[in-house]
Amino acid sequence: MPVNYTPPTPESLLPVAGVELGTAAAGIKKWTRDDVVLIALAEGARAAGVFTQNRFCAAPVIVCREHLAQAGATRALLINAGNANAGTGEPGLSDARTTCAAVAQTLGCAAQEVLPFSTGVIMEPLPVDRIVAALPAARAALSPTNWHAAVRAIMTTDSVPKAASRRIDVGGAQVTITGMAKGAGMIAPNMATMLGFVATDAPIAAPLLHALAIEIADESFNRVTIDGDTSTNDSFVLIATGKASLAPIASAGDSRLAAVRAALDSVAQELAQAIVRDGEGATKFITIVVEGGRDVDECNRVARAIANSPLVKTAFFASDPNLGRIVCAIGNGAAADLDPAHVSFWLDDTLVVQDGGRAASYREEHGQRALAKAEIVVRVALGRGSARTTVWTCDLSHEYVSINADYRS
Amino acid sequence: MPVNYTPPTPESLLPVAGVELGTAAAGIKKWTRDDVVLIALAEGARAAGVFTQNRFCAAPVIVCREHLAQAGATRALLINAGNANAGTGEPGLSDARTTCAAVAQTLGCAAQEVLPFSTGVIMEPLPVDRIVAALPAARAALSPTNWHAAVRAIMTTDSVPKAASRRIDVGGAQVTITGMAKGAGMIAPNMATMLGFVATDAPIAAPLLHALAIEIADESFNRVTIDGDTSTNDSFVLIATGKASLAPIASAGDSRLAAVRAALDSVAQELAQAIVRDGEGATKFITIVVEGGRDVDECNRVARAIANSPLVKTAFFASDPNLGRIVCAIGNGAAADLDPAHVSFWLDDTLVVQDGGRAASYREEHGQRALAKAEIVVRVALGRGSARTTVWTCDLSHEYVSINADYRS
Repeated sequence: MPVNYTPPTPESLLPVAGVELGTAAAGIKKWTRDDVVLIALAEGARAAGVFTQNRFCAAPVIVCREHLAQAGATRALLINAGNANAGTGEPGLSDARTTCAAVAQTLGCAAQEVLPFSTGVIMEPLPVDRIVAALPAARAALSPTNWHAAVRAIMTTDSVPKAASRRIDVGGAQVTITGMAKGAGMIAPNMATMLGFVATDAPIAAPLLHALAIEIADESFNRVTIDGDTSTNDSFVLIATGKASLAPIASAGDSRLAAVRAALDSVAQELAQAIVRDGEGATKFITIVVEGGRDVDECNRVARAIANSPLVKTAFFASDPNLGRIVCAIGNGAAADLDPAHVSFWLDDTLVVQDGGRAASYREEHGQRALAKAEIVVRVALGRGSARTTVWTCDLSHEYVSINADYRS
Repeated sequence: MPVNYTPPTPESLLPVAGVELGTAAAGIKKWTRDDVVLIALAEGARAAGVFTQNRFCAAPVIVCREHLAQAGATRALLINAGNANAGTGEPGLSDARTTCAAVAQTLGCAAQEVLPFSTGVIMEPLPVDRIVAALPAARAALSPTNWHAAVRAIMTTDSVPKAASRRIDVGGAQVTITGMAKGAGMIAPNMATMLGFVATDAPIAAPLLHALAIEIADESFNRVTIDGDTSTNDSFVLIATGKASLAPIASAGDSRLAAVRAALDSVAQELAQAIVRDGEGATKFITIVVEGGRDVDECNRVARAIANSPLVKTAFFASDPNLGRIVCAIGNGAAADLDPAHVSFWLDDTLVVQDGGRAASYREEHGQRALAKAEIVVRVALGRGSARTTVWTCDLSHEYVSINADYRS
């Protein structure tokens, strides 16, 4: 069960004009559920993507990058669950291209206008024939109201579907945003998450859309970590169909952008946090704020050292205020010249460490009280600058080991 | 139970001339066992140490560094288990100095000739009074034959004592080496392990001893990782009493050094591997060899990305050849310009990935057979240079979570 996350109802997910979704069952694994999603975009739609920094990036990630660079427009996305098409070498690349060509033929567009995405087991050959055979059914199912079916079809170890919508007024015109994401393990996105898609009908010009995709990912999916393993397939795509009734937004200085940006950030952050709340085996949702750093990079390294420490994560799972483990993690993440004598940290509102040592006011029962909750904030002050960052993570439980010891079987 | 490690018998641990050990019960935690070790060194003994790179290093580490820099000789070591005296700020430093002064008074030497070591819970005040009160008993117990009692007294979550001896012939003279180590969690030493002590009666001059300590740690304790958390207290000390009947060894070019060095390496590596074999919850001992790198640093980053990946570790625990997780970890540890098309890896003698994709000869049952064993070798070829490294690690089991969810209680 995810930590304080209520999955979306089908009705809560608003259609975005210019976006149609269809799902089908290709039988990629031994399951009978739908596992392929076809997304068709109206003419004129633009997409921007950010992708994993893992050097063993998956074949679909390589093809996505190529196609986004080559084509001016994007007309379709094809997503499959159950097989990541990663660590598959040249045959994997060829397989990804074959599926794009098949989608292009099905929808009547260029292969470069199709973006492929895969998620699932690494190092297994993609069952291309079964995916291609499922395309007519997916095409027949295309509908603007299919977001809920789509997000269910891209799940792997996710326990719930993760999606969200917003509707805002921009200068009298209605703008709609709907997004979906999947991922529960191998999550430490670097430039993008496992799979995240956010679509709006706002008419955002292509160069601006690309800058927005990077900025939004950096404030949402790049702020979460479950197990520190950046996946081979991380992809975040921002889609703007331009179907809303307002004039194009082409510059970052456009006064209408603020409202759209805020709504996009809100959807992306809700999805990113939902991934952590549904993290494999998660029983706690932990927000780590590091402030007073010399630069953001320093704050990030400290925040991630805490977030990825198995000792910190197991202490959170046990609700055991063994907070020296946070001290140890700070010391591992910090720059070599950090002076511990200026470091303090808080658990929610309780000062635990002051000036490098245990705070005189700190009592074990304060720590116990904070850790008994399902949502915990750790705030670290490095005491040497004004940079700041936030990272969201979860605990490490027996269930995490069970899930990952059994995942393929 | 440790993986393929038989703990030493008391008789197997050879006395080293010039080294006497005494243990006592200070009641640092709610236990009745001995938890303090006093080691007295004969006049003329030299010690060299390497210590944690964690920026929140413990008070005893700071004092050890000071004393080794200030004093020409080392006459005593004081070790306590149950409390790390880390994250304790200025009071912790003062506490460490108080214990050194008390040892100096007990033995009649200078406080700077005493090295303090602590291991246990972080961020608790050191019970100095109880430790000082235990010193007369520890002094009364001093004996060259007490290595086994000493290594038992420094254990925390260790399930077995870890110690080893060697006796070699150097130009007709007998040289003895005995070492002990502790540590089972918070283990990813960087320059030294949790606590490791190796003593020899060989007469090694001080500057050479210091160089040897660094080199030996780098080939032993710095090659292991259990959970990726470099502790606040890592310390490795190499002691040379000079009591063996041979002329001093002062230069790295001395032909007699090779045999002594080989025996020292052998003890240090056996202890380092014993720490992994006794890693918290370990059921498998995994050797990761990365070769064909541009430099050793690159090989190390890839080896540690594999060794510290919770997904790789849980797959090893489950004996599930979900080897795509190794592909993912390689991609995370590698430099940005690594070409996956030149990467191959083997599980024992089975080629799994060739040129970036699954090897045509690889069958699931090969992976299953390799993973069913308690000792596994992963060998990765990066295909772009001649650098090479080895890292030893263990799997991540339910027991690891249990141990770390319960440790303080």
